[in-house]
Amino acid sequence: MNDFLNKCREAIGAAFVLTDPADTAAFLTDWRRRFTGKALAVVRPGSADEVAALVKLCNQFKVPIVPQGGNTGLVLGSVPDESGKAIVLSLNRLNRIRAIDTINNTMTVDAGCILEHVQNAAAQADRLFPLSLAAEGSCTIGGNLSTNAGGTAVLRYGNTRELCLGLEVVTAQGEIWNGLRGLRKDNTGYDLRDLFIGAEGTLGIITAAVMKLFPQPRAQLTAFAAMQTPDDALKLLSLAQEKCGAALTGFELMSDFCLQLVAKHFPHMRPPFPQNYPQYVLLELSDSESETHANEMLEAVITDALEQGMIEDAAVASSIAQSKALWNLREHIPLAQAEEGKNIKHDVSVPISRIGDFIRATDVQLQEQFPGCRLVTFGHLGDGNLHYNVSPPEHDPADAFIEKQEAINRVVHDSVHRFDGSISAEHGLGALKRDEIRRYKSEVEMHLMQAVKRSLDPLDIMNPGKVV
Amino acid sequence: MNDFLNKCREAIGAAFVLTDPADTAAFLTDWRRRFTGKALAVVRPGSADEVAALVKLCNQFKVPIVPQGGNTGLVLGSVPDESGKAIVLSLNRLNRIRAIDTINNTMTVDAGCILEHVQNAAAQADRLFPLSLAAEGSCTIGGNLSTNAGGTAVLRYGNTRELCLGLEVVTAQGEIWNGLRGLRKDNTGYDLRDLFIGAEGTLGIITAAVMKLFPQPRAQLTAFAAMQTPDDALKLLSLAQEKCGAALTGFELMSDFCLQLVAKHFPHMRPPFPQNYPQYVLLELSDSESETHANEMLEAVITDALEQGMIEDAAVASSIAQSKALWNLREHIPLAQAEEGKNIKHDVSVPISRIGDFIRATDVQLQEQFPGCRLVTFGHLGDGNLHYNVSPPEHDPADAFIEKQEAINRVVHDSVHRFDGSISAEHGLGALKRDEIRRYKSEVEMHLMQAVKRSLDPLDIMNPGKVV
Repeated sequence: MNDFLNKCREAIGAAFVLTDPADTAAFLTDWRRRFTGKALAVVRPGSADEVAALVKLCNQFKVPIVPQGGNTGLVLGSVPDESGKAIVLSLNRLNRIRAIDTINNTMTVDAGCILEHVQNAAAQADRLFPLSLAAEGSCTIGGNLSTNAGGTAVLRYGNTRELCLGLEVVTAQGEIWNGLRGLRKDNTGYDLRDLFIGAEGTLGIITAAVMKLFPQPRAQLTAFAAMQTPDDALKLLSLAQEKCGAALTGFELMSDFCLQLVAKHFPHMRPPFPQNYPQYVLLELSDSESETHANEMLEAVITDALEQGMIEDAAVASSIAQSKALWNLREHIPLAQAEEGKNIKHDVSVPISRIGDFIRATDVQLQEQFPGCRLVTFGHLGDGNLHYNVSPPEHDPADAFIEKQEAINRVVHDSVHRFDGSISAEHGLGALKRDEIRRYKSEVEMHLMQAVKRSLDPLDIMNPGKVV
Repeated sequence: MNDFLNKCREAIGAAFVLTDPADTAAFLTDWRRRFTGKALAVVRPGSADEVAALVKLCNQFKVPIVPQGGNTGLVLGSVPDESGKAIVLSLNRLNRIRAIDTINNTMTVDAGCILEHVQNAAAQADRLFPLSLAAEGSCTIGGNLSTNAGGTAVLRYGNTRELCLGLEVVTAQGEIWNGLRGLRKDNTGYDLRDLFIGAEGTLGIITAAVMKLFPQPRAQLTAFAAMQTPDDALKLLSLAQEKCGAALTGFELMSDFCLQLVAKHFPHMRPPFPQNYPQYVLLELSDSESETHANEMLEAVITDALEQGMIEDAAVASSIAQSKALWNLREHIPLAQAEEGKNIKHDVSVPISRIGDFIRATDVQLQEQFPGCRLVTFGHLGDGNLHYNVSPPEHDPADAFIEKQEAINRVVHDSVHRFDGSISAEHGLGALKRDEIRRYKSEVEMHLMQAVKRSLDPLDIMNPGKVV
């Protein structure tokens, strides 16, 4: 393999072929620090041409490639296995904003651009790039595309897939496909773009993309509502969609227990109500007119919802600070849960109409089989996406509980499957859920996926062991 | 082949295996009546199971299959070639609305449902299914999906692709893939859905789909604006998007010559202005609040646009009848052009920001090479999609001009390519543009498409001779 590494050095410069453990460590451990793999080297090409040259070398020497963006994935998709045979190919030197077109409402960006930088570049051009998620300060747009990332604005703007118009991809053979089209309509053959999006680097390496931009909203308003059940929250969702249309940009559900955990570990963070209620919703409106107009819309929704008994109470943030405080409640749930100790996470989706039934049925089953387990249920209700997390009973040792992970996953994922849902709504499969998905997808679907994989990556060198 | 046809009769009933020319004629000629093919038979299965049984027989007997919906396609994608070796597989007996979920905002429909019936079923459930196009009374949702149809609401709601959440597909091997998921988020492997969408029946046969629904808008307003140039129209587009956000649901450009043709052949149809202007735009707003509110928004846009000199005049429809009259102007352009005689059509897209430059540059080239040709330029400006049609010089014989089709296509399509555009924005490739696209797509892209085709349809029996 020295010959291979020397050729890599020739191709991209010795300084960008890392083999010293001190240099490679950060690329080999996953974001949640649950797994550390090994690699021949970490290579850091500086252009799509250099990516292509490296992939050609990998073809020649049959070296597997693990493409990596910000390495913030949650399903072990961007770290190598323990064999030490693969290279990690980091895209983080490909970090130019190539172009912004404010009339076409598009920007062309290198895959290694940090999401937050992309958001900022759009804002500087007086445009909105709406993709937003917890890891935005570290994750890259290439990683977002490869995992079809979701986040908090999917309700209005869709997943990363819906935000992309075109791609540049280095194929598994080391050819560059220039599909960097900035077109809203193009029906000239198979949708290769969407095949590479969400493929987690197993079909090719995304090196650049044309992303959609939107006008900046004039006003953004946040409200918090309290209700009895998730079904009441669903009624509020329908009402808000009817009255606000596309102005409804956020709709997040969280149970009282979620907020109790937040208040326990971050005592200054409390819901804006004098008493507790079983469920809460955070609503966000984005308006193209004015704050006054947004306020009128929001007040109309709340008044109707109170009158119709869907909600018990509601509070509208009257300042940016108050709005931030409401979002903080929502965003501190995973942090509070981590403070509380180890827990078992699920990233699931079901049809929106079935969320109430899903939560009820699954809660019952878990309590029967794991008495006292504590359910930390929150998520993007407007997208049908729940982070249905399970913490151990209050005074039980966490480690013993975590050993039950597989049995708990089985209950939750079997229930998701019964409700026609997905066991990975926004995180992908990676290595972590690769076996799990075979329980739920039909053989027909697995065969179709495998046929596509074999056709585009016949040597199986693109991120092997992930997804299929 | 008698054995094959007998087995088809056993599988779906003899009454649904058509071989009499009187019965098959309508299935063998394309919508614009430019081509008539031949077929072994036209088969009309009544369920996905029957489709699967037929495809298995076609595998066994190596019989090519031409799937067909409403047969309204414009690129010879749904009619067989002249060999007489294929069967036409019509989906039009699969026409049930399977389910409507007003909380999940989805409907599950058979592929053979007529688009207009799908729209009506949604409306009866107080929901909007926004896909709308000229052939909606005849085309089917399966055909819309297979060609990723566009239409007049793409600006707000996207192409058919963006309106679909899940599919049921009979694979080229005759297996049924049940991907009928009603999920907004699902990241569990390759995006097979989007691979079948837009594949024009060359990878498998779509038999059912889960489509998105939207709240019905409370008010819809139409306006007509007059301006000097397409660049002024682009400025108006940016202004309207900034001020109206997602409420802007239609933005159609048409030149003065388009409306002169309409007035010539439909004398009661005239633009609502006392004088002529070089260019016109039809705007449509859909509002979730009220007509009053929509009016205020529209007035604000028009006032600003007049003040800033983007537009010369504007009229807002004050009744449904007036609104219909404005849309009629737009929709009668292709009809008026047909009345005027034969002409050469193009369905192209370019980045929205480059539309003005594209029209200017291409007009000049065509006038140089084909002096006196008359340009009938109109289309979905908000999507960058132009129907850039060319009529013969006023007193020239049409037939001699039509013989120049290939040379004229070359000028237009080469220009589209220079402007990073698409030679088929919303109609697909079919058999008509299958050779043409090879001029413009890279070898890398063609190889990727061919690899996908071979992997899913190794016997090449799914709509051979189309797309790839």
